[in-house]
Amino acid sequence: MTLNSRTSVLTGPRRLDWTSRAVPQPGAREVRVRVTRIGVCGSDVHYYSHGRIGPFVVNGPLVLGHEVSGVVDAVGAGVTRVNPGDRVALEPGVPCRRCAYCRTGAYNLCPDMTFMATPPVDGALTEYVLWPDDFVYPVPGSVSDDAAALLEPLAVGLWAARRGDVRPGHSVAVLGAGPVGCTTVMAARAVGATTIIAVDLEDFRLDLARQAGATHTLNARHADALAAIRELCAARDGLPLSHAGVDVAFETAGSLPTTRLTLAAPKPGGVAVLVGLPPDPEVSLDIVSAASREVTLRGVFRYANCYPAAVELAASGRVNLDALVTHRFPFTQTPDAFAFADREKRTSMKVMIDVR
Amino acid sequence: MTLNSRTSVLTGPRRLDWTSRAVPQPGAREVRVRVTRIGVCGSDVHYYSHGRIGPFVVNGPLVLGHEVSGVVDAVGAGVTRVNPGDRVALEPGVPCRRCAYCRTGAYNLCPDMTFMATPPVDGALTEYVLWPDDFVYPVPGSVSDDAAALLEPLAVGLWAARRGDVRPGHSVAVLGAGPVGCTTVMAARAVGATTIIAVDLEDFRLDLARQAGATHTLNARHADALAAIRELCAARDGLPLSHAGVDVAFETAGSLPTTRLTLAAPKPGGVAVLVGLPPDPEVSLDIVSAASREVTLRGVFRYANCYPAAVELAASGRVNLDALVTHRFPFTQTPDAFAFADREKRTSMKVMIDVR
Amino acid sequence: MTLNSRTSVLTGPRRLDWTSRAVPQPGAREVRVRVTRIGVCGSDVHYYSHGRIGPFVVNGPLVLGHEVSGVVDAVGAGVTRVNPGDRVALEPGVPCRRCAYCRTGAYNLCPDMTFMATPPVDGALTEYVLWPDDFVYPVPGSVSDDAAALLEPLAVGLWAARRGDVRPGHSVAVLGAGPVGCTTVMAARAVGATTIIAVDLEDFRLDLARQAGATHTLNARHADALAAIRELCAARDGLPLSHAGVDVAFETAGSLPTTRLTLAAPKPGGVAVLVGLPPDPEVSLDIVSAASREVTLRGVFRYANCYPAAVELAASGRVNLDALVTHRFPFTQTPDAFAFADREKRTSMKVMIDVR
Amino acid sequence: MTLNSRTSVLTGPRRLDWTSRAVPQPGAREVRVRVTRIGVCGSDVHYYSHGRIGPFVVNGPLVLGHEVSGVVDAVGAGVTRVNPGDRVALEPGVPCRRCAYCRTGAYNLCPDMTFMATPPVDGALTEYVLWPDDFVYPVPGSVSDDAAALLEPLAVGLWAARRGDVRPGHSVAVLGAGPVGCTTVMAARAVGATTIIAVDLEDFRLDLARQAGATHTLNARHADALAAIRELCAARDGLPLSHAGVDVAFETAGSLPTTRLTLAAPKPGGVAVLVGLPPDPEVSLDIVSAASREVTLRGVFRYANCYPAAVELAASGRVNLDALVTHRFPFTQTPDAFAFADREKRTSMKVMIDVR
Repeated sequence: MTLNSRTSVLTGPRRLDWTSRAVPQPGAREVRVRVTRIGVCGSDVHYYSHGRIGPFVVNGPLVLGHEVSGVVDAVGAGVTRVNPGDRVALEPGVPCRRCAYCRTGAYNLCPDMTFMATPPVDGALTEYVLWPDDFVYPVPGSVSDDAAALLEPLAVGLWAARRGDVRPGHSVAVLGAGPVGCTTVMAARAVGATTIIAVDLEDFRLDLARQAGATHTLNARHADALAAIRELCAARDGLPLSHAGVDVAFETAGSLPTTRLTLAAPKPGGVAVLVGLPPDPEVSLDIVSAASREVTLRGVFRYANCYPAAVELAASGRVNLDALVTHRFPFTQTPDAFAFADREKRTSMKVMIDVR
Repeated sequence: MTLNSRTSVLTGPRRLDWTSRAVPQPGAREVRVRVTRIGVCGSDVHYYSHGRIGPFVVNGPLVLGHEVSGVVDAVGAGVTRVNPGDRVALEPGVPCRRCAYCRTGAYNLCPDMTFMATPPVDGALTEYVLWPDDFVYPVPGSVSDDAAALLEPLAVGLWAARRGDVRPGHSVAVLGAGPVGCTTVMAARAVGATTIIAVDLEDFRLDLARQAGATHTLNARHADALAAIRELCAARDGLPLSHAGVDVAFETAGSLPTTRLTLAAPKPGGVAVLVGLPPDPEVSLDIVSAASREVTLRGVFRYANCYPAAVELAASGRVNLDALVTHRFPFTQTPDAFAFADREKRTSMKVMIDVR
Repeated sequence: MTLNSRTSVLTGPRRLDWTSRAVPQPGAREVRVRVTRIGVCGSDVHYYSHGRIGPFVVNGPLVLGHEVSGVVDAVGAGVTRVNPGDRVALEPGVPCRRCAYCRTGAYNLCPDMTFMATPPVDGALTEYVLWPDDFVYPVPGSVSDDAAALLEPLAVGLWAARRGDVRPGHSVAVLGAGPVGCTTVMAARAVGATTIIAVDLEDFRLDLARQAGATHTLNARHADALAAIRELCAARDGLPLSHAGVDVAFETAGSLPTTRLTLAAPKPGGVAVLVGLPPDPEVSLDIVSAASREVTLRGVFRYANCYPAAVELAASGRVNLDALVTHRFPFTQTPDAFAFADREKRTSMKVMIDVR
Repeated sequence: MTLNSRTSVLTGPRRLDWTSRAVPQPGAREVRVRVTRIGVCGSDVHYYSHGRIGPFVVNGPLVLGHEVSGVVDAVGAGVTRVNPGDRVALEPGVPCRRCAYCRTGAYNLCPDMTFMATPPVDGALTEYVLWPDDFVYPVPGSVSDDAAALLEPLAVGLWAARRGDVRPGHSVAVLGAGPVGCTTVMAARAVGATTIIAVDLEDFRLDLARQAGATHTLNARHADALAAIRELCAARDGLPLSHAGVDVAFETAGSLPTTRLTLAAPKPGGVAVLVGLPPDPEVSLDIVSAASREVTLRGVFRYANCYPAAVELAASGRVNLDALVTHRFPFTQTPDAFAFADREKRTSMKVMIDVR
């Protein structure tokens, strides 16, 4: 049985139109999911307003949305992981499963990745989606529909923490306290970081970061963030200022000043993780100082093998993803949701679309 | 100025006598500490009652006690880490700092280790001790004197978790819920384990394990622990019973059945950590099954580089060590404390001696 | 076009019959390979003579052979890795590509693994086989047909070295100098081990181990291997005998004495790798000593992601697999080859069947 | 007995004077070494000609030389590692042994490091030096005096390979084929890299790199190095040019173009190691591309725990350090040696001073 799925499509700059798309019965190892929630991600908004992100260009109609929860509607042959009626989260990227990256566990680097809402692959702002069963995760009742959708940014935070090799007792700085900044705080706390310094320009974000687990917050409008981080770490670790710093710094704001700060904040031997990226490819950085301190610099490109832990942490109550949702729109008002998210970046954290 | 330090000395089987020992001014990089609390460890009780632990034999008078907190009384030249009046915990093992183990960060394996209360090295059941400054850790007011002493078993738990490579979302089983079982639970939770199964024969211990962070408890008198662990993990991970198991199992009880269980409980690719050791050196084990599942088997010998994280976790309130103290004796009743701990293994968790 | 493939089938204890099997055109992402060489592995001989290996029982006709090289005969849709006429090696195990093990890079532990010549999956003692393209590896002219087939035991050796975490300058002991012992020697040398001690009961095997890269050989008939290893390591590392040992020990002989030796040989903090397994599941071991020295014990179950490095090492001349072939039979004499390999374990190293 | 040690001292720009310094009897755990060879390092020449390297400024007389071999002349109390008459190499950096870096095995980051020939610490261009016994390494007869001195740059190469996580079968690019470039080639080969591409502007250096183990050499005057590396890797790994690259790239030339190339050369998920540093602290880099490919960027600051492996590799003949020595001066002509090394950078590889 093929279903008609009402779908919101990006058809031009800041233009979302409605259409209806056919969704067939699931094939072997496929699952058909009735979507319940879609979180609006910064990348969705960027495609909506700019039509591209770096090398990824929107050249035709594109369905946005890759933070997805839903309910299983039908399953194809060979599916044993889930049953109709199960509440689920979808991991939005499906790799080829055969290349050297897939085989070594680094499937986020698969050159043939199919990732929702990355042109030309459609996302999930629609009523029904088909998805391979191995990227569908059942969630227990303790995980809300909102939280199930927000496992996606939590997966980013967990990958960032893994790339940063955060360990118990570590000190970390998270530059930028948006949704991914907050999930990075959650992830760092979940693996045992005890000093977690969140830095942002907006107090309401810092308040949410503190709820997420930040032990210290700094509004960079009013403080010299680097100096404050060093002072705090010097006192904590009993080190001179010249050698003080965090064990791991995370850039999640995507700006040049925070990128530079991320490289400067770690102590010798620490790690700087770029979760966000500066707007321009060429960046002038004090790489000499970082290299001399043996600070390791690592990028983050999506994530691999993070959904299972994300489900576990949310289900056990160790992280509270619901707190991140500051605004909510019904599916029928999807265009309003995007216009709002585009306009109110500074005053909103996570905008959630209630598909059903 | 040399101080006289009243000291409790083990002079024969189950015999503790009082003596007074001179404690001189601290030399360069040394700290003199007035002891406040000593936790009674299973190894202390074993020396007290049996006069030996494996190759370590008590051949002369021995001062017991290696779970130590105190207050800095005086510092020698070059000490900057602490000042007189600081409340501190002592890491009881001091390595040579020069051998291949020390230089590579594995100082717990240093062949020239000086470890408190391991014959012939004296422990800390005395009023004043001298200790090298790099093994003295200041603790903040949020860490009680009891908790500062119990950083030692927490360090064991943290090392066990590190040896087991526990990661966020992991399932773990802790066999034995004594003090080290409980600190292993705390450590596993601190690094993100979400399913923590504690197994013991005593319900009161299991209650404390649950307070420490265990999500499930099993009394092995009334349940087939291996079957229960596998069922729980099969449901959790969506796996057939034949492939189900925990990510990491910890032996902390020091018995043959729990050792065998520790090897059987992990899933393929998991880790079995021996924190305790079976009483006899030769053990009959199903090593073939473990090796075929690529289960890694690791011992734990003390710990290295765990005190800083232990202090951080206790100071931040992430672990509650005070809950482990079930009985308390003043220093003057040290012989009673040992007689009690020896007799009441089943009904006590941690016996604490209040030196001052 | 379907081909008839003449095939040697194990139909009963020590009984190999000839049959002809249809091999169809390759489907999507499949490759049809004309087999050139099959190496006879100890496991093949074990199925031939005993009809089982542990839980794997031969219940019907079974084609043996999993050390395979060949030439691409035809390719299915979507195959770009190889072309008809390419000389190739086949990795004999194909996992499900979807489970948690496959996704994290540990596909050797996949519960749905299809592994050649492991009942009920047929092996490659036949003229033509179909195989998924991602487990087919082109080899350059510098790799002989024999060597291409022997990439399989080299993959085992590489996995063993990885499990053992062998690093440059390490000392290793390899217990057993059969084909896998020799490839373990090669792998250890390839990653920088500088002291490589091979132990066996047969001098001709030890000679081959020396050709493979062993720096020292011990015939355990004439020497106390453990004492000799410790003396050698004590001198090398400037350590007392009580603390001397190798960095990594490998069991490749599958006997109880070598298993015990493997656990005893490493220095504190070292690794014991079980590539072979003792004949009985329950083994009496001095686990207490190993755990107290923090010796890590690891099993080896096949391998994951080792073929690319195996191809590279063979192609670059860093290892010489051809030297392992001591006996050779034409395909038509496959029954003789097995009878010989079964009878002459002590006098042969690798028996190779020349399929074409 | 105190010895007078004839010493070459840098007293001003390009000015080396002779003096005589007293060298007393070795104290506890100290070794007195009669120096045999000093290799002239690029950093020595930089202090000689520029009076500073970044933050390290020559403010008074400084003895240069930190690539040192010698013969033990006398030993202090407690020294068991070496005896008078032993031929030895000296590891030139001695850390505090007590800080968090020293205790975790990262002693190269010790803030209180004493490193020869780094102002204000004197080097070894003198007849006799005192050195702590744990940084003195006996070398066997198979290691020449020259090679023993050159264990120092080999240690740098080994550390670089470790920081790069080079593994068997890897492809690496080494940008710059000076002494450290060549030892990086040796180290990469020793741990199993099979494709080693050396890039330089001077053919004679590339010839030496090939002797050191490079499988491919590129003269960047005549080739587009990045394009050539990508083509070679695309062919090797069967990847499209857009995804091709080396597993690990090493910068050893200290220039901006090679720094940029080092970041561009790795494949997704690869590692870029900065052994050298660009001349200016602020560098404009395409960090966005590197981070999006999850290329890890790591600096190298000296090395930790590399001498034992360096001795082993040299002693076993796995690396040939002697081939790097292109010019030789007697101790009495030390000023000429420096003038030559300063002038003839392009035509010399390693200048060796024969102290005795």
